[in-house]
Amino acid sequence: MKKDVPLSQSKWIIEPGCVVLVTGGTMEHANCMTFSWQTPIHTSDPCMVLLVMSQVRYTYELIKQNNELTINVPGENLLEQTHFVGTVTGRGIDKFARSGLTPVPAHVVQPPLIDQCAGHLECRITEIHNVKTHDLLICEVLHASAEEKYFDGAWIPEKFHTLHYMHGTRYGLLTRRVEVKGPR
Amino acid sequence: MKKDVPLSQSKWIIEPGCVVLVTGGTMEHANCMTFSWQTPIHTSDPCMVLLVMSQVRYTYELIKQNNELTINVPGENLLEQTHFVGTVTGRGIDKFARSGLTPVPAHVVQPPLIDQCAGHLECRITEIHNVKTHDLLICEVLHASAEEKYFDGAWIPEKFHTLHYMHGTRYGLLTRRVEVKGPR
Repeated sequence: MKKDVPLSQSKWIIEPGCVVLVTGGTMEHANCMTFSWQTPIHTSDPCMVLLVMSQVRYTYELIKQNNELTINVPGENLLEQTHFVGTVTGRGIDKFARSGLTPVPAHVVQPPLIDQCAGHLECRITEIHNVKTHDLLICEVLHASAEEKYFDGAWIPEKFHTLHYMHGTRYGLLTRRVEVKGPR
Repeated sequence: MKKDVPLSQSKWIIEPGCVVLVTGGTMEHANCMTFSWQTPIHTSDPCMVLLVMSQVRYTYELIKQNNELTINVPGENLLEQTHFVGTVTGRGIDKFARSGLTPVPAHVVQPPLIDQCAGHLECRITEIHNVKTHDLLICEVLHASAEEKYFDGAWIPEKFHTLHYMHGTRYGLLTRRVEVKGPR
């Protein structure tokens, strides 16, 4: 079951550098795309994250209509869908229908969440900086939620494998967690 | 043996979202710190990366002296050292000596590389944006190199486990690579 994640812990949903799916638009008309270039930039009060967005993406056109987006974390079970929505444009096709990914209403923003993903950040853009062909989208996280079986304040790699982009059609899997033994 | 990585492929050294060690300063006086908040922002011509840097870090003081830094990728074998240099300040202590990490000259920038790390990016800061308590350092990659046993255009997770920060004293390991089966 998915439960709300306190905003002060929400950065852990993307901190390991995993691939995410970003949605823009509204429940009536949305699009989604795959993202590897993302990072937290502020832990809490507010939690903030940064996405590096190509200026030509169709999802970005939709995001700019309301300055809101959602970030959704797929696991290994969504490998094929994740790659598919990262390699085709949503101009003229319904990527949700074609991929089998299911848009569901978010808690506080207009773009949908992706139901099959294990974690979600609902965000509002507060600032944009342009660097060459990309825009740096500075976002405030307004709501966060995650599947409690897989997330206990961080992802549990023994139960849920985040995807990490490795080039072409290859993705790495985060499968194990190790603990530092102690002060040196 | 380490070999040069073409700049057009250099983003793959950090693309999986792994923890990195950043150095600033010079061979005579350097410091290093652990970083989880980093992402590529431009693939090539030039390759550019972004680091989210807390304004109070000692390493940042050194970086600002010449606007150069190096990014070094540790593997599982450097878990203890990686955590250590991320949890103490270099003000008043020599983190290299205390951690056992070895500074060696870089190819084109003044701050050292960390010899035990498997991959390196040598960077110059081109732009800085402030967001609350952190600065977004926009960097151009000037030189890249990696251990050829572990890097074939991307990390080979079966041979080299990058570290991914999971909270507190816990790190995730990227241990496996999967391939998308094909067009849907």
